[in-house]
Amino acid sequence: MDNPVTGRRHGLVVLGSTGSIGRQTLDVVRALSGRFNVIGLAAGGNVTLLEEQTREFRPRFVRCEREGEYLRGRVSAKWAEMEEMAAQADVDLVVVATTGKAGLAPTLAALRAGKTVALANKEVLVMAGGLLTAEAKRHKGQLRPIDSEHSAIWQCLWGERADSVERIVLTASGGPFRDTPAEELERVTSEQALRHPNWQMGQKITVDSATLLNKGLECIEARWLFDVPLERIEVLLHRESIVHSLVEFRDGSVKAQLGAPDMRLPIQCALTYPERLPGTSVPRLDLSRIGTLNFGTPDMKRYPCLSLALEAGRRGGTFPAVLCAADEIAIQHFLAGHLRFTEIARVIEGALSAHGGTAEPSLDEIVAADASARLWAEDWLKAKT
Amino acid sequence: MDNPVTGRRHGLVVLGSTGSIGRQTLDVVRALSGRFNVIGLAAGGNVTLLEEQTREFRPRFVRCEREGEYLRGRVSAKWAEMEEMAAQADVDLVVVATTGKAGLAPTLAALRAGKTVALANKEVLVMAGGLLTAEAKRHKGQLRPIDSEHSAIWQCLWGERADSVERIVLTASGGPFRDTPAEELERVTSEQALRHPNWQMGQKITVDSATLLNKGLECIEARWLFDVPLERIEVLLHRESIVHSLVEFRDGSVKAQLGAPDMRLPIQCALTYPERLPGTSVPRLDLSRIGTLNFGTPDMKRYPCLSLALEAGRRGGTFPAVLCAADEIAIQHFLAGHLRFTEIARVIEGALSAHGGTAEPSLDEIVAADASARLWAEDWLKAKT
Repeated sequence: MDNPVTGRRHGLVVLGSTGSIGRQTLDVVRALSGRFNVIGLAAGGNVTLLEEQTREFRPRFVRCEREGEYLRGRVSAKWAEMEEMAAQADVDLVVVATTGKAGLAPTLAALRAGKTVALANKEVLVMAGGLLTAEAKRHKGQLRPIDSEHSAIWQCLWGERADSVERIVLTASGGPFRDTPAEELERVTSEQALRHPNWQMGQKITVDSATLLNKGLECIEARWLFDVPLERIEVLLHRESIVHSLVEFRDGSVKAQLGAPDMRLPIQCALTYPERLPGTSVPRLDLSRIGTLNFGTPDMKRYPCLSLALEAGRRGGTFPAVLCAADEIAIQHFLAGHLRFTEIARVIEGALSAHGGTAEPSLDEIVAADASARLWAEDWLKAKT
Repeated sequence: MDNPVTGRRHGLVVLGSTGSIGRQTLDVVRALSGRFNVIGLAAGGNVTLLEEQTREFRPRFVRCEREGEYLRGRVSAKWAEMEEMAAQADVDLVVVATTGKAGLAPTLAALRAGKTVALANKEVLVMAGGLLTAEAKRHKGQLRPIDSEHSAIWQCLWGERADSVERIVLTASGGPFRDTPAEELERVTSEQALRHPNWQMGQKITVDSATLLNKGLECIEARWLFDVPLERIEVLLHRESIVHSLVEFRDGSVKAQLGAPDMRLPIQCALTYPERLPGTSVPRLDLSRIGTLNFGTPDMKRYPCLSLALEAGRRGGTFPAVLCAADEIAIQHFLAGHLRFTEIARVIEGALSAHGGTAEPSLDEIVAADASARLWAEDWLKAKT
């Protein structure tokens, strides 16, 4: 993607620019001043921040899902669909930092246009990993991870041969309830679930980190990003979130990537690969100050959502889409106070059981499975109250 | 070095074949059966084992430093100097697992013949790193590390750009006396010093691990192997010897290599790079079973030999050769019970103070500095008794 001869600035599109990852992506762009040309910005509904970002980065294209009319009257950027801006000729890199299934179509469009996609929206690969990796291969598009775990694995694989990999080990902090007695879990509140011990993130992913469903999604994401079967992907509890993940090679050697828990590091890595640049003010890792790193095996009984996610991943086809849809609905109701923490797993389990499944689904079939799982979950929740 | 087209076996010479690393190298060769053709074997004085090895691996050349006459009459292999066997046309890889300065001339010969040298004999680079790396560059010879720490760093650097490296962090177990009260150190015995908590190694390196002088030598070795100045090489205490070393990059990312403390892993890595092969029965790393990894800063007062080594490294020229020579003599006397553990540092300090130093020394000047430091140390020890 880079052009060292002409020194042309890399054309960048940021989808989901007002969310946590989107804002930090623009922090990195700001810190690496002169390296990127922001061609498009898209956001959900934070129109005030998107207006500010548009004034600062002067993209050619802009889009806001909600309250678009207000913004259109106030900035000179052209209005465009995310798919359209992602496929522009002068775009090199598309950061997909949307949430849920919103990133699906633009990711597909970017890969079909042969772009490099830096992916923070893990549901995209979970729902449609088979389709997206096949299309990327066909059109010479590339996927780079932004998730800290997948960035760690990716960095450990630089310079390694694909057939050298024995196992991928994803670390998990265990979330805010890792020390809560199991019998108290059904009474925990959304306020408690939103207090993640190590990371500042959006609401949905924070709850997904509390149930460890997030880690299951990451296993499925890793399966597609690194072409390693789920049976060779493991989860390791690591409370400190310093070792971001590990790769075991077939000679018995293990490589790990470590760092302070700061998303600007994996974001910058995805933006500047294969270079590593100084620039962001990520705190330096000081292991002698940290002193101790702890590791353990996750208790699957404590984290039923992790088992359900791995099961959906193994079944493949449209099951992972159903998993994501049911989880999203369940979390909405949990955050609204209508569902117990332990019932999130029950909604997901029910939706997976009710689903028939389609192997090697098209995008339409994935979207349909998502929609019907949402309906199923909403019905289940109505029946419950 | 490999020839994937013809599938020719890699020509291998093992210098120091009867020592700990030499024997494990031949274990790896045995495990990767059919991959290597052992062209030469050389050893110090373990003529019985060398005879066995010669019968098993049928090298074209053999050499035993002591008791050679006995062996010459019993095997059909030709007698040759180490320099001669290392430079043979059909040799691809020379494993230098000798000790002290014995590996110096054959390493130079191998690099001048454009061979790949897998180096376990760290004194070679400590004494003559400037000379050897310059000759390697000139003749397209290559150096690969066998030391577990340097192998870790090397593996972390695969696929990375040289200008991405910010710091190298060498881990140190702290040796058998890491928890011994400082005031008791002057009374510790050689039996105690030889009880390393994590690694089974030769006597000299085990004592060097107890004084941490070994870690200082490793810093100097890393400086030459990876072309990183000593100021950007740090030592981190890590009792478990699971994280073998780390590299910090300039974007703040840190990569580490981990594994069971088993030298067959770095040996195999050096022998099969860039491939990773299954083969040796190295135990798999299980972090959840290990549970906890600890890190800390070494106390320079407790480990004066580490400071002395780093100081010799900073002064450069012939100082590191004087360091190694004085240390070797001091350890001989310590093992014989003629010198206290804490006096090892005094011998080294005296020898360094007495030395004038030569910048960018030739091999002859290095050998002369070594010889005069030995004399100085022996004289000091005589004067003491």
